[in-house]
Amino acid sequence: MPLDFTINPVSSRIKPDLQAKIDQKTKPLGALGQLESLALKIGLIQKSLMPNLSRPTILIFAGDHGIVASGVSAYPQTVTAQMVANFLAGGAAISVFARQHQLELFVVDAGVNASIPHPSPLGNCSRRSPTSYIHAVVPEGEGAYSGFPQLIAAKIARGTKNFLYDSAMSANQCLKAIQTGAELVLQQHENGCNCIGFGEMGIGNTSSAALLAHCLSDIPLAQCVGRGTGLDDSQLQNKHAALQQALTRHQGITGPLDVLATFGGFEIAMMVGAYLEAAELGMLVMVDGFIAGAALLVAYKLKTHVLDYCVFSHVSSEQGHQALLAYLNAQPLLNLELRLGEGSGIAVAYPLIQSALLFLNEMATFADAGVDQQTGN
Amino acid sequence: MPLDFTINPVSSRIKPDLQAKIDQKTKPLGALGQLESLALKIGLIQKSLMPNLSRPTILIFAGDHGIVASGVSAYPQTVTAQMVANFLAGGAAISVFARQHQLELFVVDAGVNASIPHPSPLGNCSRRSPTSYIHAVVPEGEGAYSGFPQLIAAKIARGTKNFLYDSAMSANQCLKAIQTGAELVLQQHENGCNCIGFGEMGIGNTSSAALLAHCLSDIPLAQCVGRGTGLDDSQLQNKHAALQQALTRHQGITGPLDVLATFGGFEIAMMVGAYLEAAELGMLVMVDGFIAGAALLVAYKLKTHVLDYCVFSHVSSEQGHQALLAYLNAQPLLNLELRLGEGSGIAVAYPLIQSALLFLNEMATFADAGVDQQTGN
Repeated sequence: MPLDFTINPVSSRIKPDLQAKIDQKTKPLGALGQLESLALKIGLIQKSLMPNLSRPTILIFAGDHGIVASGVSAYPQTVTAQMVANFLAGGAAISVFARQHQLELFVVDAGVNASIPHPSPLGNCSRRSPTSYIHAVVPEGEGAYSGFPQLIAAKIARGTKNFLYDSAMSANQCLKAIQTGAELVLQQHENGCNCIGFGEMGIGNTSSAALLAHCLSDIPLAQCVGRGTGLDDSQLQNKHAALQQALTRHQGITGPLDVLATFGGFEIAMMVGAYLEAAELGMLVMVDGFIAGAALLVAYKLKTHVLDYCVFSHVSSEQGHQALLAYLNAQPLLNLELRLGEGSGIAVAYPLIQSALLFLNEMATFADAGVDQQTGN
Repeated sequence: MPLDFTINPVSSRIKPDLQAKIDQKTKPLGALGQLESLALKIGLIQKSLMPNLSRPTILIFAGDHGIVASGVSAYPQTVTAQMVANFLAGGAAISVFARQHQLELFVVDAGVNASIPHPSPLGNCSRRSPTSYIHAVVPEGEGAYSGFPQLIAAKIARGTKNFLYDSAMSANQCLKAIQTGAELVLQQHENGCNCIGFGEMGIGNTSSAALLAHCLSDIPLAQCVGRGTGLDDSQLQNKHAALQQALTRHQGITGPLDVLATFGGFEIAMMVGAYLEAAELGMLVMVDGFIAGAALLVAYKLKTHVLDYCVFSHVSSEQGHQALLAYLNAQPLLNLELRLGEGSGIAVAYPLIQSALLFLNEMATFADAGVDQQTGN
């Protein structure tokens, strides 16, 4: 059963020892602010005074959305598949930022409404031939990341149905997507990854995310509906009206799985399974923006303790994300008005996570360095 | 004359071309938020559509403060010299973060109240022998940074005088410090550095910074006086009373140079010269926290256009920094409640600056990648 996830709350047994280690570093108490709470959190997740980051990885889930036919997005649906090609060719923002920080990157076709050619496992490609779909295979061993992601074919269907008229997906499709997301994370874990984040690509998916956020929290619909990739005022009104109509059409839907199947996307459902599996495996989970946050909300409604394993990379400028983070009691690392998805917030925030562990593991203590402590201490 | 700085305003001639380049990248318009404005700013500073970061460097200026005798700090004055040793041995927070991002690091003895042994140019040292003062010389060539900073001996005097009774430094000392800061930056520029930031270490220097901020802006004293390295409520009251007394003692002091000589520190005065020289040379200037910000305020009062070259790494949790940033109309990149100084905010924010240039230089355009643009565009 795909929902047979056992997520243990993170134990605070070693918290005093971790806090003492942090406080002995050559700096005023608390002077590294949020980096200190981050180091503490990761130490607790890994049950270690010397936590580390092993094979940090981003999976981008891509899927299409039937609701796009109702004019909720500034971009045509074709862009989902085109951006998948762009990811594979190394030309997208996430491609650039993942290379910058040597993050392993995989693109999952969760339900794109197009045939995505299987990439050839042979040959190399230049960053400047984004339509070739050919990518280099990621070689074994640390630091050997080529900068080009692998494509994982896991299409549930060619896009969801339009939730103005139908459920976006069947209950079976929803469970299959959750299970697939979980399996993909397990695979990464078996490869030695202990630190994973999930990005998404799917024209129209802020509409799904808005409905999930609204239905599974106390946030009013109007606060959840944003400009997505760049709607103007009247397009935004149209989007809000369409989503209100969808809510009326599916009145009475409440449980997280039903809400997910009714309004979600295949990429979102896979992320739900991915979060749950990563938490079950005790991995550090890096959370991106609004859509990633809405998927996490579903996971949280299924298994509360998934949040114990999450670090929130940023607060997006997409309407609704701030309220969603507040609902999840989350402290994002960055506030750079990013609103791109793709896991880009995770990649940009990743060096802060590194910094947190580096100070914990490498800084000298007052005793080591022969530095006097606070007067009166 | 040390104040013979010619700082040209940054021209916006290539702004339309830069903005067009940013807008052609495969992402919704504006979706990379502050990274986009950062890329634009750096492109304008460098007058280039392909801006780059060459030999990014942090200079840490260290100096002692006579006011410490009046009990304004939670740490004893000995800590300044001890932390210099810790920097050199690679054990401080800035040592760790500079290594993480391959930033070149230099420690300048601007006026520490102790003999800092000249480091031997020979031999290597382990990170775990922080009192040896021995450091590896930074080898030539990119990527060869050893992780251990060089010490630059530039002591003006063994600490400033206590500004409760005297001017902290003489006008001549102040000018000499400004000139020294400028010369050190020129040296870095000649070595190929186009991107520089300044950190500081000096027990007691939030007191100096508070007075500079108050005297040279419209921010009330109480808002400028913070807990520094960790004062409790009554110690904070004492600090505020001492600074109020100093203001009364030196009533009528107004010009930036006079205020700097009266209340400043040698490390702060060197930073003033460093900012001015870096801006004159057209370098990208990375600004750290409250003390670095107060030094920049002095530079700004001398030459307004210094701000054109500045990127603000973070807003510190030290009281007064937020108001100071607002006064300078500055948009910090990070808000992680850091309050450590040393240039640590710069080092932690540095990968965001890299990300801004990487997206500008490496992302595919809509045309390159064959991705459809916004409907109606």
